[in-house]
Amino acid sequence: MAPLRVAFLGPLGSFSHQAAAESFSKLSAVLQPQVSFPDAFAALQKKEADYAVIPCENSTNGSVMQTLDLLADRDGLYKDVKVCGEYYLTVHHCLMVRKGTYPGGWADYDGSITKLYTHPQAWGQCEAFLAKYFKGIERQDVASTSKAAEIVSKETTERGAAIANRFAAEQHGTDVLVENIEDRADNTTRFLIFRNVLDERTAQLKLEQPNPPTLEGEPALETTHKTLITFTVDHSSPGALANALLIFKAHGLNLTSINTRPSLKKSWQYIFFVECGRIPSDENKEAVHKALNDLRQVTETCRDLGTWKDHLSASNA
Amino acid sequence: MAPLRVAFLGPLGSFSHQAAAESFSKLSAVLQPQVSFPDAFAALQKKEADYAVIPCENSTNGSVMQTLDLLADRDGLYKDVKVCGEYYLTVHHCLMVRKGTYPGGWADYDGSITKLYTHPQAWGQCEAFLAKYFKGIERQDVASTSKAAEIVSKETTERGAAIANRFAAEQHGTDVLVENIEDRADNTTRFLIFRNVLDERTAQLKLEQPNPPTLEGEPALETTHKTLITFTVDHSSPGALANALLIFKAHGLNLTSINTRPSLKKSWQYIFFVECGRIPSDENKEAVHKALNDLRQVTETCRDLGTWKDHLSASNA
Repeated sequence: MAPLRVAFLGPLGSFSHQAAAESFSKLSAVLQPQVSFPDAFAALQKKEADYAVIPCENSTNGSVMQTLDLLADRDGLYKDVKVCGEYYLTVHHCLMVRKGTYPGGWADYDGSITKLYTHPQAWGQCEAFLAKYFKGIERQDVASTSKAAEIVSKETTERGAAIANRFAAEQHGTDVLVENIEDRADNTTRFLIFRNVLDERTAQLKLEQPNPPTLEGEPALETTHKTLITFTVDHSSPGALANALLIFKAHGLNLTSINTRPSLKKSWQYIFFVECGRIPSDENKEAVHKALNDLRQVTETCRDLGTWKDHLSASNA
Repeated sequence: MAPLRVAFLGPLGSFSHQAAAESFSKLSAVLQPQVSFPDAFAALQKKEADYAVIPCENSTNGSVMQTLDLLADRDGLYKDVKVCGEYYLTVHHCLMVRKGTYPGGWADYDGSITKLYTHPQAWGQCEAFLAKYFKGIERQDVASTSKAAEIVSKETTERGAAIANRFAAEQHGTDVLVENIEDRADNTTRFLIFRNVLDERTAQLKLEQPNPPTLEGEPALETTHKTLITFTVDHSSPGALANALLIFKAHGLNLTSINTRPSLKKSWQYIFFVECGRIPSDENKEAVHKALNDLRQVTETCRDLGTWKDHLSASNA
């Protein structure tokens, strides 16, 4: 069989690249960088890619609005694209420099770095480390952490350092001076993995996260499968939203997350994104199907965006 | 009585400034620019301001995450701050230049502008106009549309133009060449107006939007008052979220919007922001109070963030 084609948001060395590489590490896959999320979805819809790996939520920053807008599919461009899996990537930042700059590593560091490069969001994620070692040093925003690594890898005139992930260091051949400089050890991004439901080639493949995250504290819900459904309701009908949400409960589907985005058809009307979980059993094997049927009675539009194995649940430990 | 002190996010000439000025146009008020949303809330909590006007949602871009995070009040800093009103501001952009640059106005324009300034979000809101008249012209991102107006008001060496609102043009004394250059005529930002509930001075004041927005098409819900409630649920308890949402329905409170943000206590657990509406009547005058009592039985934390008059409802027309 030809290798699987997996689309992700570039550039090479991005967190999306890392998530794509790790989630397909056990399968023979060619990773295809895309310049935008819509390009990745378009490649799937046209069957020019077999999978797309897209960030949907960060444990600190919340949902990725661009991804919700893509899932809203307001123009009906991606009608065969559905979720088939998820991948949790813990975000670790490293401080890195051009190869050979400090042969003795961080122990050898003499305070000579004059400029730092990274994506704007990463500064805030490494505040404690930066305040301790790089107070007052010039900071240059760049479009991605991977780009920051690329810049310092080629730099010859200044003493620059980049904040990026270890994966970017390997991609661009930089030296990592310090690992795990992030403030929060538990900062994690959840990626959704998509496929084209008409693609027979990927219909039988099962995706398993090689290293599922472990949850601290009390066990998570005993849910092993999650389903994503989007819908819109008639906002002039009182109780329409509550009635739609009730249907999930009526079919034993546990609401695990709710998001909203503007419908862009009318102001102050929304598209709802509901994720719900269940443990498959003989009793509930038709639950999603039945809930969708009932939802169609009380919603204006309603769409099943797929069911996949929950990689966060304690049941998978 | 001394004038009311109204806090808003600066700089002068920002959309927040415009919303604050318009919503308090009938009252004697001193407008106080603040450097951040938390500063505006802190001023209210310390009673150094009487009101704060904060953007919460845009009809095209959706909810303002920074504002939701402020309302989440994870550290309990703003315990007496509640919503007491709302204001809808239609977003109109203008093209403006230094005073006297083109005495004949747009009709006199000779194509000599070499650089454009605005906030990054505004480019996308004026794409059609820019593609028609300023294709290929250099674009400079600045921190606010008001800052863009200020830059071109002082410029002497280049032919620069700014995209900002008419209010910023008045603040900085620039000449407006073209009005309403935005792609969508209905792009509207909803502001929430906050007060300190322990402030006796503002307890008796009623806020009315002088020019409430008109809705196209079918009438909105017959709701005249809205209430905002935040809560967290025990995510390890199946159905906890559905049970909480059911309580609103049980008390005749219609769900008008739901938002979520990470709790930041545990990964993948959320704070829910529920807005619900009702028409006050003898039957439901205790509805919010009763719903809060019931919510406290099924939630981990639960907070009433205030009730105010709905300025969007058809009932107010």
